[in-house]
Amino acid sequence: PGTVCLEDYERLAREVLPHDVYEYLASGCADDLTLASNRSSFDRWQILPRMLTDCTQGSTELTLLGEKFRHPILLAPVAHQGLVHPDAELATAEAAAIMEAGMIASTLSSVPMEGIANQLQSNKWFQLYFQKDRNGTLDLIRRAEVCGFSALIVTVDVPVNGVRNRVQRSGFRLPEEGSAANLSNQSAPEPIVLEPHESIIFQGLMREAPTWQDIEWLKSQTDMPILLKGILHPADAVRCQELGLQGIVVSNHGGRSLDTVPSTMAMLPLVREAVGKEFPVLLDGGIRRGADVFKALALGADAVLIGRPQVFALAVAGALGVAHMLKLLRDELEITMALAGCPSLARIGREALFDATSYSNELSMRKV
Amino acid sequence: PGTVCLEDYERLAREVLPHDVYEYLASGCADDLTLASNRSSFDRWQILPRMLTDCTQGSTELTLLGEKFRHPILLAPVAHQGLVHPDAELATAEAAAIMEAGMIASTLSSVPMEGIANQLQSNKWFQLYFQKDRNGTLDLIRRAEVCGFSALIVTVDVPVNGVRNRVQRSGFRLPEEGSAANLSNQSAPEPIVLEPHESIIFQGLMREAPTWQDIEWLKSQTDMPILLKGILHPADAVRCQELGLQGIVVSNHGGRSLDTVPSTMAMLPLVREAVGKEFPVLLDGGIRRGADVFKALALGADAVLIGRPQVFALAVAGALGVAHMLKLLRDELEITMALAGCPSLARIGREALFDATSYSNELSMRKV
Amino acid sequence: PGTVCLEDYERLAREVLPHDVYEYLASGCADDLTLASNRSSFDRWQILPRMLTDCTQGSTELTLLGEKFRHPILLAPVAHQGLVHPDAELATAEAAAIMEAGMIASTLSSVPMEGIANQLQSNKWFQLYFQKDRNGTLDLIRRAEVCGFSALIVTVDVPVNGVRNRVQRSGFRLPEEGSAANLSNQSAPEPIVLEPHESIIFQGLMREAPTWQDIEWLKSQTDMPILLKGILHPADAVRCQELGLQGIVVSNHGGRSLDTVPSTMAMLPLVREAVGKEFPVLLDGGIRRGADVFKALALGADAVLIGRPQVFALAVAGALGVAHMLKLLRDELEITMALAGCPSLARIGREALFDATSYSNELSMRKV
Amino acid sequence: PGTVCLEDYERLAREVLPHDVYEYLASGCADDLTLASNRSSFDRWQILPRMLTDCTQGSTELTLLGEKFRHPILLAPVAHQGLVHPDAELATAEAAAIMEAGMIASTLSSVPMEGIANQLQSNKWFQLYFQKDRNGTLDLIRRAEVCGFSALIVTVDVPVNGVRNRVQRSGFRLPEEGSAANLSNQSAPEPIVLEPHESIIFQGLMREAPTWQDIEWLKSQTDMPILLKGILHPADAVRCQELGLQGIVVSNHGGRSLDTVPSTMAMLPLVREAVGKEFPVLLDGGIRRGADVFKALALGADAVLIGRPQVFALAVAGALGVAHMLKLLRDELEITMALAGCPSLARIGREALFDATSYSNELSMRKV
Ligand SMILES: Cc1cc2nc3c(=O)[nH]c(=O)nc-3n(C[C@H](O)[C@H](O)[C@H](O)COP(=O)(O)O)c2cc1C
Ligand SMILES: Cc1cc2nc3c(=O)[nH]c(=O)nc-3n(C[C@H](O)[C@H](O)[C@H](O)COP(=O)(O)O)c2cc1C
Ligand SMILES: Cc1cc2nc3c(=O)[nH]c(=O)nc-3n(C[C@H](O)[C@H](O)[C@H](O)COP(=O)(O)O)c2cc1C
Ligand SMILES: Cc1cc2nc3c(=O)[nH]c(=O)nc-3n(C[C@H](O)[C@H](O)[C@H](O)COP(=O)(O)O)c2cc1C
Repeated sequence: PGTVCLEDYERLAREVLPHDVYEYLASGCADDLTLASNRSSFDRWQILPRMLTDCTQGSTELTLLGEKFRHPILLAPVAHQGLVHPDAELATAEAAAIMEAGMIASTLSSVPMEGIANQLQSNKWFQLYFQKDRNGTLDLIRRAEVCGFSALIVTVDVPVNGVRNRVQRSGFRLPEEGSAANLSNQSAPEPIVLEPHESIIFQGLMREAPTWQDIEWLKSQTDMPILLKGILHPADAVRCQELGLQGIVVSNHGGRSLDTVPSTMAMLPLVREAVGKEFPVLLDGGIRRGADVFKALALGADAVLIGRPQVFALAVAGALGVAHMLKLLRDELEITMALAGCPSLARIGREALFDATSYSNELSMRKV
Repeated sequence: PGTVCLEDYERLAREVLPHDVYEYLASGCADDLTLASNRSSFDRWQILPRMLTDCTQGSTELTLLGEKFRHPILLAPVAHQGLVHPDAELATAEAAAIMEAGMIASTLSSVPMEGIANQLQSNKWFQLYFQKDRNGTLDLIRRAEVCGFSALIVTVDVPVNGVRNRVQRSGFRLPEEGSAANLSNQSAPEPIVLEPHESIIFQGLMREAPTWQDIEWLKSQTDMPILLKGILHPADAVRCQELGLQGIVVSNHGGRSLDTVPSTMAMLPLVREAVGKEFPVLLDGGIRRGADVFKALALGADAVLIGRPQVFALAVAGALGVAHMLKLLRDELEITMALAGCPSLARIGREALFDATSYSNELSMRKV
Repeated sequence: PGTVCLEDYERLAREVLPHDVYEYLASGCADDLTLASNRSSFDRWQILPRMLTDCTQGSTELTLLGEKFRHPILLAPVAHQGLVHPDAELATAEAAAIMEAGMIASTLSSVPMEGIANQLQSNKWFQLYFQKDRNGTLDLIRRAEVCGFSALIVTVDVPVNGVRNRVQRSGFRLPEEGSAANLSNQSAPEPIVLEPHESIIFQGLMREAPTWQDIEWLKSQTDMPILLKGILHPADAVRCQELGLQGIVVSNHGGRSLDTVPSTMAMLPLVREAVGKEFPVLLDGGIRRGADVFKALALGADAVLIGRPQVFALAVAGALGVAHMLKLLRDELEITMALAGCPSLARIGREALFDATSYSNELSMRKV
Repeated sequence: PGTVCLEDYERLAREVLPHDVYEYLASGCADDLTLASNRSSFDRWQILPRMLTDCTQGSTELTLLGEKFRHPILLAPVAHQGLVHPDAELATAEAAAIMEAGMIASTLSSVPMEGIANQLQSNKWFQLYFQKDRNGTLDLIRRAEVCGFSALIVTVDVPVNGVRNRVQRSGFRLPEEGSAANLSNQSAPEPIVLEPHESIIFQGLMREAPTWQDIEWLKSQTDMPILLKGILHPADAVRCQELGLQGIVVSNHGGRSLDTVPSTMAMLPLVREAVGKEFPVLLDGGIRRGADVFKALALGADAVLIGRPQVFALAVAGALGVAHMLKLLRDELEITMALAGCPSLARIGREALFDATSYSNELSMRKV
């Protein structure tokens, strides 16, 4: 009854989940500054509505990488969903199918990707983390191909873990078993042996981190469209484009990787400007309202991903929760479009926004 | 005794009203961001007073659409006033008459418009919501004409209801009976039947929403001056002007329709610039102080409307409350004019304001 | 022991004074926005110190209207000091004499001006409120001349009382007797009789408010230098200069007159720019720290006035309190000058300040 | 267990230390505005990361004044460490040696500088406060030379004590004995005798304050490289350069000297611009996170100093605490570099930052 918007699911999840699990899901990193700014950066933009527009032919449909989507709201890859619900990603996928939402299955899902793929007819993508060696990575790709995933989302923004202070304080640890079903056949990580004066970060953990060369190699190994997830810098976006990749996700991993990086909404317009109109650009980070989706599209995103709300809704009410969460958001998007006078996604452009931080300037230049 | 300004009536109303009714009246929509920014946007502007001006001939009079008004403070259309007081809009109208304030009767009044009109000698306008079919709309117009309403305020910013989360959480529902006395003879709404994949918003609710064509039709049906209420975009304002309408109300429905739209005070100067000096422009949203009225006029409004404070005052003390509320506001306006050195409305111009956000710039350009 | 800065006196005064008296002294008007911005506007300016300057010849002396002052901190006119201490202004004057601070005696002092003048050897000025008729005003001027007051500070920013909501709520009323000792021989106010449709503000109270003509008349009646107190607009400042007045006090009456007018620190640089380098400009409003005095001088003030802290200190500890308060502030000013590398008032210029709001711009223009 | 970042040490120190000692360490001065702005000014800058960079050769090494340092994090001079731990600076030095951090021993150390020097093999500098007479100062320099300190950091920003209101309120006093072991053989301060009308600040305390002439004299007395600590103004920085000094520390004494001076991060880019690329510039003030170190380097600092966290860690867990604190910070720096795609200090430039306050401008100029 009191669950009327996405934030309500976060509030309820906080009540039903063990503290450490909640902290693992909800926290960002270090001082949570990027986490907070992902949200607050939406406030800079206001929607400037047009009245009396005919909306009776309205629709939220779009085409992305050649696929049709009923609406531009996708489920972001979120690992280890078994932490919050026994059906884990299977429930999430069921909800995605019902609500006709695209879903991006995580490398680190609690159930094998094959099960997830089974629940989904279309709009199913696979999120790839590079593995210790190329064979391990190839194994994941081949399985994803077999499962019928239609795109590969390669996450590149956590080559080492961020400074997860809230998680450290909560005492949270991943359960030893079953937290990453897709990786059971991967070979064990090699122990790190360092010379004196070598760094555990640089000479240790970063040894296994992918570089641009690995992306080129990946491209040579599969015909699936490849999108890099975790791009913030316009120059990195352009590099993806030049490499012939199919798109990017502007993301800072929900503020979980490096604290004090810019919000995704701050970077989005600069990225879109850099890559031009046609290159597929998605965005995630802090999307909680239909108005947020609207603003992201207006600044150049083709679609958006939803991270935490899906696990909060899953924790609270399983597949039904996730479906309800998606319905709330999609209804809000349609109402926003109707009230703003934009009956199709193509009508949602920069001119539908008002910059709350600069109107004084505009004004003083013109009027006073 | 402790009721010394408009906000006091809100505080008291919160105490005397059932929670759900208070929430219905006080809330905006979604996260209440536009509601808050309607208020906070007044803070950007400061009044730059002139000293030692002769004010002994001072007056707040104005002429609007050819009518004389004693002061530029009108009562906004506010629906369902029977929720808070048995005399409903009759009490409000009585107060308006005593305080010589213009009143805009809502389509959704709890008592028939005929009764309201009876209480008012002059400065009475009728607010129109388009009905399901044109006959229903025409019926309202004809009755308004007969009642002697001298202008038609057509509200265009809620073709579908906003996301009223606080109202949903409060459990508020309009009473089945008597909540819209003017509409008792309107035909029942047709049930919405949708094809699969049609949207309840676009193909459902928006089917009955008016478009610019309906406005043109309306204009052909009546000689009353027509003002559109709910305009934010300067281009929409210009379109009203081009259609030969008599004016607009810059409004975002008190933050109740689409959250995250700009405050009305942010749009007002851009709208005024777009339509030129003569076109009647009114404003509402967050007016609570005489200084607010002053600032709105200084940025180009001809007059302002007061929404919530009238129902809060009505809830607290009936007609007397509304009259007292109007008196407080009008006295504040006169004191503000006297202290600012502006003895008439015509003297209240942009040069009487100081932009708190840009003085540093001005300064650094000139002085440092 | 815990009284180490001016704000401590406010805290303590709040404890020792009856609530209504505290409210009368401490409050601004309406929503206290100008009161707050008087304080917060100091934060925009930061002091940019120079190191290793020789300060052994340092001094805070200045000459104002031909008089020597030991330091640029004067006591503002504050009415009715008998409300907080039996010795009233006599105690304040004693403290001023001890600390060699200039004092401006209010028209509305609780003890006659003659007693105050007796306590002060030099640097004593008289603050004038225009009286109902010119004879009453002349009576005050003649007495001030006889007492040896060396300047007339004419307060022009409260022709009608502001909207004093906190005072109204507190129930405060001035005691019938003895609250304005200087005015006991003034004739009683005439009752206000209004025509229907006349305004109590414009045709009532403003009838007795002075205009520029009255200032010219005043100038013809006395040889004392005349400064207008309550000027905010640069154009009004220039008008004072053109009339041949001797200076102004940039003031908004401590935020007690019209709420939402700019802070005095916001207007000061624009006023100084308008009147040129030589015209005497004083400032009050929110001065609580030596750094505040420094910043006001750096932006063009010749000296500053202290309002509320004097009555708070008087309430807490009588003459000793006021003297201690002045000593704290003067010591802070000297420490600030020493640490900033400015050993004389003449060295405190605009270049000693850093604009916290615009450094990004400067920077991006030059460096990035 | 819960000690996962530097602020945790502050929290814990607050619990274990007597209130007055905590206040002495933690407080700034006056209203703590500069203290707060030292921290908040980091928020203006965001890190704009590059993805998929090869970091396997990563390192934090640098060369400063001809010395090699393992990383750019030094311990700032912090007086009287015996207040919080019996081993005082000896423990701190032990931690510095273990973590290969540079250490700057204070003139006011609780143990003699000889003991501190003994603990350190390299990267040891001495912080000099000028003494009452030149012999006293020379004595300190000669001892520092004998001890093998390789640079002299001359602190110039507290010629008189700031307005330490929190310390005054706490009742804190330095213990009579043993608080400044290096100065036991200095001659006693001469009593200050003032003429009437002389100032305790200017003619009293500032008599002993050094001036630029004393710096020139100092330079003639030693071959150690000299850096001035406490420079904020670019012009003072240039003067150091012109005098042939070896560098500066941009510092405001951790907000303890003059309140309302700019944050060090605000001045850093202007200082760097003024002195050019090669002149050694260090910075301190509010560094608490690896990201803060990164940002300071990106804006032009060669290295940074850490003040309060060292005494908080010392209070909580002695040498181990300080070592752990340094390890936390250094690890954070390496993770930041890895996630930002900057595998060496030389790669950390202005282009790695994003200005959170100006992106709207950039954007509106280019895109909209
Ligand atoms: C608990 C959790 C687990 C995540 N796991 C993954 C993952 O396995 N792969 C991935 O690319 N991103 C992962 N992310 C990041 C999300 O895909 C997404 O970028 C982020 O959550 C979006 O921000 P939002 O949560 O504010 O919507 C995870 C995020 C969370 C909160
Ligand atoms: C309870 C309530 C009912 C309202 N009903 C109507 C209405 O029937 N017609 C209309 O045009 N506007 C309606 N409004 C909007 C007001 O006319 C007005 O635009 C708004 O309240 C102004 O903002 P304010 O409340 O901050 O003064 C309503 C507003 C409230 C709060
Ligand atoms: C209690 C009180 C009484 C005052 N009385 C007078 C007065 O009689 N005449 C006058 O010119 N200003 C009067 N003022 C205004 C002060 O002179 C001064 O402008 C103001 O207090 C400065 O601001 P501050 O209180 O923040 O220092 C009064 C202010 C207060 C707070
Ligand atoms: C308790 C304390 C004692 C200090 N003692 C000295 C000192 O003896 N010499 C000196 O140059 N700076 C001294 N400082 C200033 C520090 O060197 C440094 O500039 C400042 O603490 C940096 O800011 P942070 O504490 O925010 O890191 C001291 C600071 C503190 C907090």
